[in-house]
Amino acid sequence: MTGRNITVEQLAIHALRALSIDQVEAAKSGHPGLPMGAAPMAYELWTRHMKHNPANPAWFDRDRFILSAGHGSALLYSLLHLTGYDLPLDELKNFRQWGSKTPGHPEYGHTPGVEATTGPLGQGIAMAVGMAMGEAHLAATYNYEGFEIINHHTYALCGDGDLMEGVAAEAASLAGRLGLGKLIVLYDSNGICLDGDLDRVFTEEVGKRFEAYGWQYLRVEDGTNNLSIGHAIEEGKREPNRPTLIEIRTVIGYGSPNKAGTSAAHGSPLGQEEMRLTKQAYGWTYEPFVIPEQIREHFAQVKTNGETQEAAWKALLASYRKAHPEPARQLEQAIHGELPADWDKALPVLQPDAPKMATREASGAALNAIAKELPALFGGSADLASSNNTMLQGFEAFGPEAYDGRNVWFGVREFAMGAALNGLALHGGIRPYGGTFLVFADYLRPAIRLAALMKLPVVYVFTHDSIAVGEDGPTHEPVEHLPSLRIIPGLTVLRPADANETTEAYRYAIAQKEVPVAIVLTRQKLPVLSGTASSAREGVSKGAYVIADPQNGETPQAILLATGSEVSLAVEAHKVLAKKGFATRVVSMPSWELFDQQSEAYKESILLPEVKARIAIEMAYPLGWERYVGKEGVIMGITAFGASAPGEKLMEEYGFTVDQVVSTIEQGYFKNL
Amino acid sequence: MTGRNITVEQLAIHALRALSIDQVEAAKSGHPGLPMGAAPMAYELWTRHMKHNPANPAWFDRDRFILSAGHGSALLYSLLHLTGYDLPLDELKNFRQWGSKTPGHPEYGHTPGVEATTGPLGQGIAMAVGMAMGEAHLAATYNYEGFEIINHHTYALCGDGDLMEGVAAEAASLAGRLGLGKLIVLYDSNGICLDGDLDRVFTEEVGKRFEAYGWQYLRVEDGTNNLSIGHAIEEGKREPNRPTLIEIRTVIGYGSPNKAGTSAAHGSPLGQEEMRLTKQAYGWTYEPFVIPEQIREHFAQVKTNGETQEAAWKALLASYRKAHPEPARQLEQAIHGELPADWDKALPVLQPDAPKMATREASGAALNAIAKELPALFGGSADLASSNNTMLQGFEAFGPEAYDGRNVWFGVREFAMGAALNGLALHGGIRPYGGTFLVFADYLRPAIRLAALMKLPVVYVFTHDSIAVGEDGPTHEPVEHLPSLRIIPGLTVLRPADANETTEAYRYAIAQKEVPVAIVLTRQKLPVLSGTASSAREGVSKGAYVIADPQNGETPQAILLATGSEVSLAVEAHKVLAKKGFATRVVSMPSWELFDQQSEAYKESILLPEVKARIAIEMAYPLGWERYVGKEGVIMGITAFGASAPGEKLMEEYGFTVDQVVSTIEQGYFKNL
Repeated sequence: MTGRNITVEQLAIHALRALSIDQVEAAKSGHPGLPMGAAPMAYELWTRHMKHNPANPAWFDRDRFILSAGHGSALLYSLLHLTGYDLPLDELKNFRQWGSKTPGHPEYGHTPGVEATTGPLGQGIAMAVGMAMGEAHLAATYNYEGFEIINHHTYALCGDGDLMEGVAAEAASLAGRLGLGKLIVLYDSNGICLDGDLDRVFTEEVGKRFEAYGWQYLRVEDGTNNLSIGHAIEEGKREPNRPTLIEIRTVIGYGSPNKAGTSAAHGSPLGQEEMRLTKQAYGWTYEPFVIPEQIREHFAQVKTNGETQEAAWKALLASYRKAHPEPARQLEQAIHGELPADWDKALPVLQPDAPKMATREASGAALNAIAKELPALFGGSADLASSNNTMLQGFEAFGPEAYDGRNVWFGVREFAMGAALNGLALHGGIRPYGGTFLVFADYLRPAIRLAALMKLPVVYVFTHDSIAVGEDGPTHEPVEHLPSLRIIPGLTVLRPADANETTEAYRYAIAQKEVPVAIVLTRQKLPVLSGTASSAREGVSKGAYVIADPQNGETPQAILLATGSEVSLAVEAHKVLAKKGFATRVVSMPSWELFDQQSEAYKESILLPEVKARIAIEMAYPLGWERYVGKEGVIMGITAFGASAPGEKLMEEYGFTVDQVVSTIEQGYFKNL
Repeated sequence: MTGRNITVEQLAIHALRALSIDQVEAAKSGHPGLPMGAAPMAYELWTRHMKHNPANPAWFDRDRFILSAGHGSALLYSLLHLTGYDLPLDELKNFRQWGSKTPGHPEYGHTPGVEATTGPLGQGIAMAVGMAMGEAHLAATYNYEGFEIINHHTYALCGDGDLMEGVAAEAASLAGRLGLGKLIVLYDSNGICLDGDLDRVFTEEVGKRFEAYGWQYLRVEDGTNNLSIGHAIEEGKREPNRPTLIEIRTVIGYGSPNKAGTSAAHGSPLGQEEMRLTKQAYGWTYEPFVIPEQIREHFAQVKTNGETQEAAWKALLASYRKAHPEPARQLEQAIHGELPADWDKALPVLQPDAPKMATREASGAALNAIAKELPALFGGSADLASSNNTMLQGFEAFGPEAYDGRNVWFGVREFAMGAALNGLALHGGIRPYGGTFLVFADYLRPAIRLAALMKLPVVYVFTHDSIAVGEDGPTHEPVEHLPSLRIIPGLTVLRPADANETTEAYRYAIAQKEVPVAIVLTRQKLPVLSGTASSAREGVSKGAYVIADPQNGETPQAILLATGSEVSLAVEAHKVLAKKGFATRVVSMPSWELFDQQSEAYKESILLPEVKARIAIEMAYPLGWERYVGKEGVIMGITAFGASAPGEKLMEEYGFTVDQVVSTIEQGYFKNL
């Protein structure tokens, strides 16, 4: 839009407010306060500064917008509806109702134009950091002179609550280090939190803090002054080397005669009478959900502009394809989330005579093999790259020194890493992964949950996966973490038993388009198991398969189920038992989730319903194995914290030795034979 | 110690370095770099500034010290050993070995003088904030003119990694708001992180950031200059209203000719040859683990001083007891973690004709009833006090305005809240609790784990415990959280079914001295169940009990197991089934952990081995119920994320209705009768 018609502009802002109030009122549930206070900045950004095309929310070079303060969803739906996204008025009338496109907090993949699922505070800002990282990386990798094919901003709108969260602090520090100049965060600073006046809990100088991180800090004293807001956004856009935080002072519940500026406006409907008074204060005379045609036309300009902008970009893309065909092909493949034909051709397969190798090492080899063929692979570790084996050899560190670098140094910021991985996946064109110790999966757990909820193909590299970590002791030894990940709906957990299963875990993980995958890996060395060179590929993809069976083909008397490092233990026990005359089967079960998806016939071919003598062996909290070992089953797990001692010693003390496995089976099943 | 003998002082610092190096070398595992660089500040603090008595690590008015950078444990053990704590040299020789008192990371309750379990980064600082809160509160509550019975500092030593973690940022912001002048953090600033040079990941101006939080920031350019370090500590102590961060520039692996100043000195032994060269550089000529008598005598002064200081305090306490007998009695009771005789007398018991009440409301009533009788009860919520019902009515907000206030406004800082609760429990004299939504238990999960590992009696108030939350949608609806908490070793989870069970959950939780307890509560209203007024007290303490049985005393044909809000659903289904002629039992099972601790006889009296038809009903991820419902059991749970809609609608869509329960049981068990 060009020129300013103050009257129309004011009315359009009131329209956003009124429509947001109406949604909350209709639902009798929701948060009117933020939309009422932040409507001017939202209007300013969405209609005058943001590059987007409501007709095509998937346009790749659009500016991204994340409502980090997700409880203000009604404002986002009002914006989407009025600017012409595919969100009809009826959806707004069904705010927060079953089956509507307007859930209580914005949900990615559910509502056109919603860029990220938000609500859990702080994560929106951190996802925005991930998006800006993605933009910077793709721009540095694919732009050529005259072909700025990737060139967009990432905006987030946040509240005080977001800025109190540690994940936002970690992400802001990271963004400052990375110099993400195209990241602009609008801070709706209203001085009120859910529990009342903000100064009761939050008295820091936010601007000074962000400057300390290396950000540009701007401040708009009057959040209803669109000229000032617009100037600040422009100033943010002019800064190439630093992210920008714009603190915009607002009044929560603006215009409500009795609730404005108080926490009463935060999380509850205004009520019919207060709604009436508020609209009166706005001079808004229309019925609920009624928008005057003049205002509709005013907002329609956004779509027209967006279509023009996207058309220009498409033309640029067409000439880019001609001028730089190979990069163009590669970029478009990445944008569509497709894999190069031979992406997995360099994945190593090892024979059983290979030297022992920790699965974390095998993971490093697999990542590097994939990196050569898959340019979209991009990631790193939370300051444990050398322990997690996450370095992509031959590639630079990502940052202002080299935005085309593919190794990200996230620092000791696990949660920000998790959220940034989500942002990278949401941005598109990137296949993100990130590593830390399995025990610290807890630190990023809320981001893993969001990845699963959004169905994002993020790969987690979790090493040091059991008490075998040893000397570092219980603070570094995961116990409950494996089951804790298995119960996140939609996450696939893979715990490979050797180098070949590790390779296959990656073959599975990278092929996913809508599934986050946690790959759980050892610190300690493991043998390459007999047969996995040929059987792991199908076996891993099915979640469980037979690693060893009685030599003479007879029906086993017992089945040993194990995952990860315990599979080789089970194989050793199987051999000892064979010498004692007991016939057993060993099943490697790298993934419960994948096994559960198989046919009953396949499951029965592995677990043999007639064999009731089953033992599960896993150095983790044993919850849930009952479903595989059955009523007469035995579970060897760990229900206490670990300890500090060499890993071998711990495994002995906690009973994870061949002798212990053998005697458990003998006592459990064979003592009366 | 008075006066400075530079030569002895230097030798004593080298002794700390050498002893730390020796430990790591003997274990062939550990982190020598931090102890070598930070030895001067540690020496300075422990021998010249800290008020502590190695002869009595439990002296209540001692200064607290947390090694937030827990990987530097060898330094802490060297300090403890040399200053005379009960940590013999043999323990240092067994660093990181099975059964030793010197685990890889410091463990509270395991090693005398270790104030907190550290290692997971950032949490040490946040626990120190909790400790300083505890000191400020007790001092304000119990000190009288002439009787500064509570008057000590809290020190933490942290590294760069700690300062990158979000939890430290949250805690620092909180500490600034609370004006905790007696908190002093020494920042070992060595410019190196595990993955190499720090400026690759961390370029922010730390001092400016902490000033923005409201801290005093001091800087010591030469970390080997003890005079400067000492002056900075003194300056920190002089500041009454702001916490102090002292950045002390050090060289990691100080003195190692080939590894100093590099990440090679961080996490691996120096190796024999480098050790030799390093000790040569120090001019340290003694064999490993040999400390010259002169140095032992030098350090022995710490204990002598400490004994004198504690004796003076004890004399003060004796006269305080006379001058202020009632506060003295109360304080000593709190210090010993004892409860007043009638602490639970005001706990409400409701009859079935009482109005429906959400268990979060019952929780608020219980907390307030306890608060009246138990002055040590102290806590709050992460900006959800009004939703979590955690406010103690009639008490002030804790802060510089009123440090004797008992309501803590933690802000939107769940993780810092969790870690601060640990710090409060570690400090002693406080019975801490904290609340948030159950879904955000994920945000503080790493702190819950540490509470369990340290066996701290922290109470978590987790409300909004299922999809019944409704309109807020999947980001706010816990699904996997109940099982995820149940698998943390040592944590007890209680999900009460009505107001009376809620009361009893508190009666159990507050009586614990070594068990953290998570109380899981509804947002929606629930009926008061028939019988719980008399049966819940014993029933809750046993984890599961019978809520309803067939009226005529016959053996039930099926057992309905449920927790929390699903118990009343089960009772309704039981009634409908009775009308249809089916005899069922309803078991309320508020706690798996408590039930698992009961005798087999009790368990069988509840679950009736002869009744194979069992159904578990819980609006959570169903992992683990197999162990209670058995092989022929049916589990009604939720394996997907929730959605946004009114709670009643969601329960209907997800199958948690009386009709659905009845038909599931009919189809599962009675269809062929």
